[in-house]
Amino acid sequence: MDSIVIEDTYAEAFKTKAAYLLITAATKELAYTAAVEATGFATSFIGCPAEAGIDEYVDVDKTPDNRPGYSIIICQNSTKKVEEQLLNRIGQCVLTAATTSVFNLLPDSDTQTNLGFKLSFFGDGYQEKIEKYDKTLYKIPVMSGDFLIEENFGICDAVAGGNLYIMAKCQQSALTAAIAAVNAIKSVPHVITPFPGGIVASGSKVGSHEYSFMHATTNEAYCPTLKDKIDNSKLSSDCNGVYEIVFDGLTQEDVDVATQKAITAIKTIPDVQVISAGNFGGKLGEYKIKLINE
Amino acid sequence: MDSIVIEDTYAEAFKTKAAYLLITAATKELAYTAAVEATGFATSFIGCPAEAGIDEYVDVDKTPDNRPGYSIIICQNSTKKVEEQLLNRIGQCVLTAATTSVFNLLPDSDTQTNLGFKLSFFGDGYQEKIEKYDKTLYKIPVMSGDFLIEENFGICDAVAGGNLYIMAKCQQSALTAAIAAVNAIKSVPHVITPFPGGIVASGSKVGSHEYSFMHATTNEAYCPTLKDKIDNSKLSSDCNGVYEIVFDGLTQEDVDVATQKAITAIKTIPDVQVISAGNFGGKLGEYKIKLINE
Amino acid sequence: MDSIVIEDTYAEAFKTKAAYLLITAATKELAYTAAVEATGFATSFIGCPAEAGIDEYVDVDKTPDNRPGYSIIICQNSTKKVEEQLLNRIGQCVLTAATTSVFNLLPDSDTQTNLGFKLSFFGDGYQEKIEKYDKTLYKIPVMSGDFLIEENFGICDAVAGGNLYIMAKCQQSALTAAIAAVNAIKSVPHVITPFPGGIVASGSKVGSHEYSFMHATTNEAYCPTLKDKIDNSKLSSDCNGVYEIVFDGLTQEDVDVATQKAITAIKTIPDVQVISAGNFGGKLGEYKIKLINE
Amino acid sequence: MDSIVIEDTYAEAFKTKAAYLLITAATKELAYTAAVEATGFATSFIGCPAEAGIDEYVDVDKTPDNRPGYSIIICQNSTKKVEEQLLNRIGQCVLTAATTSVFNLLPDSDTQTNLGFKLSFFGDGYQEKIEKYDKTLYKIPVMSGDFLIEENFGICDAVAGGNLYIMAKCQQSALTAAIAAVNAIKSVPHVITPFPGGIVASGSKVGSHEYSFMHATTNEAYCPTLKDKIDNSKLSSDCNGVYEIVFDGLTQEDVDVATQKAITAIKTIPDVQVISAGNFGGKLGEYKIKLINE
Repeated sequence: MDSIVIEDTYAEAFKTKAAYLLITAATKELAYTAAVEATGFATSFIGCPAEAGIDEYVDVDKTPDNRPGYSIIICQNSTKKVEEQLLNRIGQCVLTAATTSVFNLLPDSDTQTNLGFKLSFFGDGYQEKIEKYDKTLYKIPVMSGDFLIEENFGICDAVAGGNLYIMAKCQQSALTAAIAAVNAIKSVPHVITPFPGGIVASGSKVGSHEYSFMHATTNEAYCPTLKDKIDNSKLSSDCNGVYEIVFDGLTQEDVDVATQKAITAIKTIPDVQVISAGNFGGKLGEYKIKLINE
Repeated sequence: MDSIVIEDTYAEAFKTKAAYLLITAATKELAYTAAVEATGFATSFIGCPAEAGIDEYVDVDKTPDNRPGYSIIICQNSTKKVEEQLLNRIGQCVLTAATTSVFNLLPDSDTQTNLGFKLSFFGDGYQEKIEKYDKTLYKIPVMSGDFLIEENFGICDAVAGGNLYIMAKCQQSALTAAIAAVNAIKSVPHVITPFPGGIVASGSKVGSHEYSFMHATTNEAYCPTLKDKIDNSKLSSDCNGVYEIVFDGLTQEDVDVATQKAITAIKTIPDVQVISAGNFGGKLGEYKIKLINE
Repeated sequence: MDSIVIEDTYAEAFKTKAAYLLITAATKELAYTAAVEATGFATSFIGCPAEAGIDEYVDVDKTPDNRPGYSIIICQNSTKKVEEQLLNRIGQCVLTAATTSVFNLLPDSDTQTNLGFKLSFFGDGYQEKIEKYDKTLYKIPVMSGDFLIEENFGICDAVAGGNLYIMAKCQQSALTAAIAAVNAIKSVPHVITPFPGGIVASGSKVGSHEYSFMHATTNEAYCPTLKDKIDNSKLSSDCNGVYEIVFDGLTQEDVDVATQKAITAIKTIPDVQVISAGNFGGKLGEYKIKLINE
Repeated sequence: MDSIVIEDTYAEAFKTKAAYLLITAATKELAYTAAVEATGFATSFIGCPAEAGIDEYVDVDKTPDNRPGYSIIICQNSTKKVEEQLLNRIGQCVLTAATTSVFNLLPDSDTQTNLGFKLSFFGDGYQEKIEKYDKTLYKIPVMSGDFLIEENFGICDAVAGGNLYIMAKCQQSALTAAIAAVNAIKSVPHVITPFPGGIVASGSKVGSHEYSFMHATTNEAYCPTLKDKIDNSKLSSDCNGVYEIVFDGLTQEDVDVATQKAITAIKTIPDVQVISAGNFGGKLGEYKIKLINE
């Protein structure tokens, strides 16, 4: 464990737009079910309609309605696209979910979208605008009772593409370290891990050597099964597994904190050899998330 | 419990297109994680890019690679749209997931799409076409090892929109009955429950009385908080909660079996009053899924 | 919701002895698995060898070894019985669990038991006493690597028998309220809910009218199916479900906080009618946990 | 993967007594919660009051009351001790659990214990003996409604101590293989994996070289951190992790099937080196569970 090398490099992150919402429900499990559906199919801007994930559990004495909740973050590269995603994801995956309500966690953001107003037309004339919990809400009669949603939802700048590479002697050691890293990041507020289980098994490079129509292809320099077949492998001869973890945060500081906490967790797993990160020499993004801070 | 009324009506289901795939992984939990992400944000064709869900757990002696797996179903209303969804959902949510492989569960379907071939370009020239498990697969080197995916995937006709309405004295009784019904349907092969937790809290009617731009709005006749305010309520005075469950199957028989099994389960929950279903007099679909069979 | 009656009564709690430990592991899930097994079969002193439960998740930057962990509490009515339970539960359910370590969360308690020393004999001469994380630990070689456990574990006074009764129009409404209450209590540090899911479906009275050999029997005054058959029913004619929640804390203040938080959560569930609590006029215990504070 | 050595040896299993029961509830999750509590603190006869575990999920059309259920197995080394465990575990962990009922899955066993009759005294005179589902049941009024339990429960001979050792290059690879093996065994009917997560991190030998008072101590020959310090290590120089899995079945055939299925699953995990099993030359038990069948 003592011999893990932390490379003196950085993850290259980039600016995005994000919404930050709270879903509450009668029980913790019901809130979780809605949050999972609303943030599904949202691992990467390449190929998914959004990057999204669950931020954290919010205890009953910190929610407006004293019910258990989960905060979620939904990212896209423009305010308009975030608005589209909100309309579809909250309309189809949360309005439809049992016992849920939805609240704005960015009330002070300059950009506000009237998602609640738009969704209220589902009420077909029976919806009501009300004041409750010191907020302006819409109350929409539905089969299960009344659905409550705040009128406005903030959209803010955010930082996508925080990442770490984990290299290990065995594939399962790298994977366990990735799981431990995601466990650690989950307790950092304002940070999500959009990939399945928070983990990327197939980390990519930008573009392609072979196929001009591909925007992203396998990062062969980090592929264990290619290490003896290519000249540019960055893996040592006894590395047999690499996993990447990817995370987005509301600010660069959030991503920095998540990075350090993930490194702390990774270092606890036996047979991990190297911790590194993906960057593209500044081609992709404007944020440098350093692994080693002076 | 004895006094539950099962209305002599039918759910109106409609034809769709579907892919039916198997995701395997090193452990049951890793396979599940990938399956959840790949079928997320997929509750309804109105507003979601697909209807999708997990079909069932597939035991290690029934998978090609002897690893635990989950079968999933992804529906859209044309072959082309299913192909698009496959490319994005498998490419972004399964290729990226730890230790996964993907197999075709519709090898005999007349329509086959070469999803594995298309995704293999991610290998940037390092991919290989191989024969294994009596199948044609692509082996794509990735950071974690090699990703295996079958070359072709079948697309078939399927039946969407199976549904039941559950009315009860208390909202939580209707909800528990809906959960029990989803529990029951989960063991019917070839059937998915695409909504969050399989349940719809906000069952809708087609169109709107008030807003011409809305394709679906609240089904006010079944809204408990409106029952004393409108003339067309279908709820008894002591009904305080209604939940809908929605399910899609590969064939009408699958949906029929699921319907009967769900009814059996719903009948076990105290304080349920009525079981009904949603139909639109034949406007929406061609299949009549009867609640009571002669 | 507005009409819930909170009875001006108290739960009668009693003194017990408790151990308070931290189980860490490579991943959150592995730590949880060990904690569940170690605290199983431990709902009540009547019939179980202990009352035990998981306290809370402990984040990687708050554990000695930077791995995810769960704190657990194990109660019995004497120091000696707590020591016996520790030896068996930690020896059989945590030493055997994958990747775990165990730490003392009561280092300042006057009573310390040398559990780590006792378990170290499992090492059959290969065990070592070491200093690590500013603690005295035993390192025991096992098949999976080395098992680490602190030498001493504190035992303290604690408060058992905190409870609330929840009465509702439907059984499922009372149950959902009980689940919401347990969700709320789970975030109160130093409090456990030892029954299955934290909930008691069969709340009891002390002793029996009919059978002198029974120490506890059904509390018929709160049984919905008896309300029309007995004279002493405490249920209104439209109450059809009652659930009790039971919780133990390290101090009376912990139990007081849990009680108020649970009440807050219960009040959010529709169709709940009354919140009360069980007491025995001071026969059972020395602590009065009031529902309503002046 | 191709080079895994399966040693031509056997696991030594021994005769025990077992009860085999079905717990049903309103939902799958509620049934699971009760089953987990009832089978907790039950990893090994050495130090635990029983060996117990969940057998499998039982679908709504295979349970007497059409509710979802889990079958469980509880083992002890005499009929009397099984009876004691049933009384305490079902009385404290299932009678107390929300919405549960309990049924006998060994109605044809020669030995039947009247557990339901004994527990019915909890009803304090309000219990009733009834016929339902073609069975003789007790109906006990409780706070949540009525608790139903069958009158008699069978006790049969069973086979404990099925096991496999998994050796791998990295600890996490052995662990993942153990998890995959447990996943595989879970679908074998009549077989339980009583340890935490089904896995033993600290496999033991009978007795001790150093301490006459110890009945079981670490199996130093399989401890990776001792392999360079002792003469009798059975591990190769590049083995860094060993996990054992332990399972009990109702018959030897059940344990044989589980063994083969587990081996099939283990073989799918990279970096596993050897599969073996624990035996004691016939000192412990009468059953030889061979790894390789002619």
